[in-house]
Amino acid sequence: MTSTDELAFPLEVDYSYADLSREFRDVRSGPDIARWQELLPPLHAPTLGEGGTPLVELDGVFVKDESRNPTWSHKDRLNRVTVSAAVGAGAPGIVVSSSGNHGASAAAYAARAGLDALVLASAESPPAVQDFLRAYGAKVLSVPSEGRWPLMRQIVERLGYHPVSNLTVTHTGHPFGPEGYKSLAYELHDQLGRTPAAVFVPTGYAELLYGLWKGFRELRDLGLAEGAPRLYSCESAINAPLSRAFAEGIAAAKIEYTPGSRAYAIGAALSGYRGVVALRESGGAALTVTDEELDEAQRRLAGQGLWAELSSAAGLAGYRRLGQRFDGPVVCVSTSAGFKDLGVGTAPPETVDASWASVERLFI
Amino acid sequence: MTSTDELAFPLEVDYSYADLSREFRDVRSGPDIARWQELLPPLHAPTLGEGGTPLVELDGVFVKDESRNPTWSHKDRLNRVTVSAAVGAGAPGIVVSSSGNHGASAAAYAARAGLDALVLASAESPPAVQDFLRAYGAKVLSVPSEGRWPLMRQIVERLGYHPVSNLTVTHTGHPFGPEGYKSLAYELHDQLGRTPAAVFVPTGYAELLYGLWKGFRELRDLGLAEGAPRLYSCESAINAPLSRAFAEGIAAAKIEYTPGSRAYAIGAALSGYRGVVALRESGGAALTVTDEELDEAQRRLAGQGLWAELSSAAGLAGYRRLGQRFDGPVVCVSTSAGFKDLGVGTAPPETVDASWASVERLFI
Repeated sequence: MTSTDELAFPLEVDYSYADLSREFRDVRSGPDIARWQELLPPLHAPTLGEGGTPLVELDGVFVKDESRNPTWSHKDRLNRVTVSAAVGAGAPGIVVSSSGNHGASAAAYAARAGLDALVLASAESPPAVQDFLRAYGAKVLSVPSEGRWPLMRQIVERLGYHPVSNLTVTHTGHPFGPEGYKSLAYELHDQLGRTPAAVFVPTGYAELLYGLWKGFRELRDLGLAEGAPRLYSCESAINAPLSRAFAEGIAAAKIEYTPGSRAYAIGAALSGYRGVVALRESGGAALTVTDEELDEAQRRLAGQGLWAELSSAAGLAGYRRLGQRFDGPVVCVSTSAGFKDLGVGTAPPETVDASWASVERLFI
Repeated sequence: MTSTDELAFPLEVDYSYADLSREFRDVRSGPDIARWQELLPPLHAPTLGEGGTPLVELDGVFVKDESRNPTWSHKDRLNRVTVSAAVGAGAPGIVVSSSGNHGASAAAYAARAGLDALVLASAESPPAVQDFLRAYGAKVLSVPSEGRWPLMRQIVERLGYHPVSNLTVTHTGHPFGPEGYKSLAYELHDQLGRTPAAVFVPTGYAELLYGLWKGFRELRDLGLAEGAPRLYSCESAINAPLSRAFAEGIAAAKIEYTPGSRAYAIGAALSGYRGVVALRESGGAALTVTDEELDEAQRRLAGQGLWAELSSAAGLAGYRRLGQRFDGPVVCVSTSAGFKDLGVGTAPPETVDASWASVERLFI
């Protein structure tokens, strides 16, 4: 498969699987994704303790709470590995195009590794997320989205910074990105003591989706797990390029981006070949969810003690949308924390009297 | 020791230590604090996967990153146990007086356990934290601080809600609170493979400080650990009731609260007997840190990839303030995440051109 001006295929990382040690399955002691080192690229960047997130049962499904990572999203699994690539390449810094979790996570791992970080953000992400991006000492530029990728390419060429997000016309991402996400599949198999029947995945560019698939496929092909789960991509109904590509039987789709969804973290205008591979090979499907369905799923999660970002509730929303029963455990991945939502922190509280009447009004 | 109108002594939880199973030290498999059930009160409330947080090495000290808990603070260790007490007592709900982490955590565990939650907040906490308090479906009342405690007592009496924060004239807290925090001591001993030499603890009401001490003391007295660490309370320099009580050799102090510190999560006006016990028995000391020292410590943590709340940086700030070398590992507890700080999310970003000139200006 050869990339063209209109379609880019990703690089794939392969391993000498035959040389995998017998101990691989028993290595459960490490506090971070290095416990799976044998099936990961070299981890040159120091850890922040990513991974090892809990699986919380809720109304008959399991929620994998990825807000429990070092920068409170799943992106830390990816950035441990991509920043490791930057360290391995001897780059003086990393550059990333991101409006939120990916950028902050890259900045945190770069800081930890002693590399510079430059984040090309958009002004659309919430102000608290802008502070999050800046917290780790990265240089942050808020630039209009259409100019982000050309500028990123210039930064790579002129400064020698290592890019840890996409540079291609359809999405390929950093080749090491999904490798970090594989750890999520290994962990799920470990925590459940078996292969789940289905996994529902909040989906923007489908790197997480593909990483999960590759991890489960490896476990199956290595004889370490029975079968593999069906994977379901859960995109915003307003912008769903993977759903289009999957429906049309094409490798990747570019759509015109429609603003309006509050689920900004999964708002993608282009998909990549890997998303289609994950859905097709796993026997899953492409789902879309409306903002109202996301609101409902977010409320359900919070009503059980998990305050997820709106986009992160897409896994549970997709599962409920599908309405199908499975013969085995169902996992909904929740990617991030509610603090990162649009609108959080905009309304100052109204102070009331410390009287019994104030309490009674709450119960009317 | 008998409580008076001016000084309240806490209830202490005791165990039948002689009956502790031999396996206690080997139970490392649980994904939450239930792994230490034998030395905890009954855990009636379901878990959200609290505890098991990573220890990150940084400039020669270890940072225990408690922002990795279910509601992104150490308070989840306490609330699993106190909400369990509410469930065990058959209460229809819980009530808590808190401006931040404690309230949100109590609301999350109450929601998970199917109990109502009523939070008496103050209007001084940041708007994002107000949203955090409301996220889990709790009823939230922002009332002036002087009226919070009398109103809380009324709620307990009239609604039968179980109080999970303090109701006494000097601080005693919920008797089960420090029991949950003991898990932090067990984990630290586990992760280091030995007893640390010193632990620096962000300190408001000193429940965390005492819980840590009780956990280490138990390990030592049970012969499961060699010795115990020195514990250092790290209070805000502006309001430091424990420092006063410790210096004056009294059981607890009440001070006039002085506004002005941005470290609102450790701003206490009264201390409790347990804080003095922890410092005295461990051979530690009471430290205070200024907001500027907290800023510096927060920057150091973020510069290594950990975005801590300002108050949470008090552990590292206290260690740096003390400037003493220890013969063994030093742990600074970092209690919570930067998203909860005053001022986060208040400044909208300035968009610039996606041009090379914009990049160059960053490097001037």
